[in-house]
Amino acid sequence: MRERDVIDLISSIVGISQHDDCVLFDNGEEYITVCCDMLTERTDFPRGMTPYQIGWMSIAVGLSDIAAMGAKPMGVLWALHLPKGTSQSFISELARGAGECASYAGTRVLGGDVGVQDELTVCTVSIGMVKKEYCAKRGGAKVGDLVGITGELGVAPCGLRIFLTGASEMCERYANEMVSKALMPIPRVFEGMEIAKHCSSMMDISDGLAVSLYEIGRRSGVGFEIDRDKLPVPEGVWVCMGEDTLDTVLYGAGDFELLFTASEDEMSEISSLLDITVIGRTIEGEGVVFDTGEKIEDKGWEAVI
Amino acid sequence: MRERDVIDLISSIVGISQHDDCVLFDNGEEYITVCCDMLTERTDFPRGMTPYQIGWMSIAVGLSDIAAMGAKPMGVLWALHLPKGTSQSFISELARGAGECASYAGTRVLGGDVGVQDELTVCTVSIGMVKKEYCAKRGGAKVGDLVGITGELGVAPCGLRIFLTGASEMCERYANEMVSKALMPIPRVFEGMEIAKHCSSMMDISDGLAVSLYEIGRRSGVGFEIDRDKLPVPEGVWVCMGEDTLDTVLYGAGDFELLFTASEDEMSEISSLLDITVIGRTIEGEGVVFDTGEKIEDKGWEAVI
Repeated sequence: MRERDVIDLISSIVGISQHDDCVLFDNGEEYITVCCDMLTERTDFPRGMTPYQIGWMSIAVGLSDIAAMGAKPMGVLWALHLPKGTSQSFISELARGAGECASYAGTRVLGGDVGVQDELTVCTVSIGMVKKEYCAKRGGAKVGDLVGITGELGVAPCGLRIFLTGASEMCERYANEMVSKALMPIPRVFEGMEIAKHCSSMMDISDGLAVSLYEIGRRSGVGFEIDRDKLPVPEGVWVCMGEDTLDTVLYGAGDFELLFTASEDEMSEISSLLDITVIGRTIEGEGVVFDTGEKIEDKGWEAVI
Repeated sequence: MRERDVIDLISSIVGISQHDDCVLFDNGEEYITVCCDMLTERTDFPRGMTPYQIGWMSIAVGLSDIAAMGAKPMGVLWALHLPKGTSQSFISELARGAGECASYAGTRVLGGDVGVQDELTVCTVSIGMVKKEYCAKRGGAKVGDLVGITGELGVAPCGLRIFLTGASEMCERYANEMVSKALMPIPRVFEGMEIAKHCSSMMDISDGLAVSLYEIGRRSGVGFEIDRDKLPVPEGVWVCMGEDTLDTVLYGAGDFELLFTASEDEMSEISSLLDITVIGRTIEGEGVVFDTGEKIEDKGWEAVI
């Protein structure tokens, strides 16, 4: 079964109706946002990652979901299952990476759970708070909105490929930076809080850009037209990925950037405050196409169970 | 390393200072309580458990932590990693068990995460709310308090042993009930909310009675004297465990009862409202002894990493 089908099945049985990056709890004028992300060695931490990077990554993934709602992080819980015999120095480095990522985003690891398991497994619980009027959801995009993205695209999937298979000679000089960005993603917490005041919808693109556009489109009842030449793809990705560049940018996973929609006026406001790129607009109907007319497919990272 | 040492190491690196069943977030007159518990097939779900029971157990463990703070559950997040090829009916039964346990405790599964992993792994995040003045912690016991416990002792570890090794002829007629209680524990949410209004400290005894007494003692700076003959051990445990009964009651894990301390007056109040048993009193100094003078050891369930 595909991950999405499993989620639909469970949702229908236990009665889950909300599908955003976090679960929302009503708290007067605010929402408390809670999300959990479970990562495992074989799927999420490629061999060769340092324990510091694993710790950092495990927290970044959770805080990115908080960022996608526009919430201010209040703290993180960190459940950790370690293989028997894990060394003290490995655990220390894991904790140092986790603590420093939380600290980078202005928050802290406050508690968690510890156990033993053959495969290193980490579950991060992120708790945030956001004013109801600013809370960003996936289902709010309107026809005529512009589409924005933070940061650059394709960097993490490109960095991960270099990490796993090595860099070509031409790519060599970009390799270190790409790999580092792939293994230690920056959760866009501060950007998220600012964008949420202006946007009509938002989510992170950790599963890929295309699949995230389709998700916002489905939840909002709109389609997207993306300007092919506006995608903020850095030189390093072009050089290292060559003819695979566009596929990497659209369908590769691991970029923890924020994808959002906003009216023209609100988008100008966001542009004046943050370094973002407008990459297209919402359109009537459904589906995602380039301005050149080519169809973008509804695919990205998805677990298959 | 022992679980406790790993927790101390991580706490010292990331700066965790609070050690209760849940993490507390300040929210005006209330605390928001959040906890996470990660369970795995090999450690927590013995072969032969039905998926319904696994789903139930995974939620019960998390809600028991909420109960131990005296908080009202607001919802549960449920992260689920399944082995590739898990059937739709298995997933449905897991979800049904999870949903029904949450519903039993007056709450719901609101969201989560899904992924693929060789070993079935579940992380439950429980969110609750409690008035600050009623919030029960581990560190509040005072010398002269009485010690109370909900329910019966030794049932889950006894049931688990029967489930794993079968029942003796004498034990046969108790077996079904014991096993069912071990595999589908009842989180004491409603009792916890009531007890918290009167108690000076509380925690659940999921890791064992003895180790929980030591934990409250350490956090509160008191010792305990336990009345050996007052321990609420049902006939079935005596019959099935024979001469191992006392060890099972003190050091066995899996009973999700609430252990708490309260002044004599407050304990009378609790007794008049709920079916609880007073099993001893706090004393000056440290350590845990029987009224007969025998020492109770500081041991129970603990992961070794």
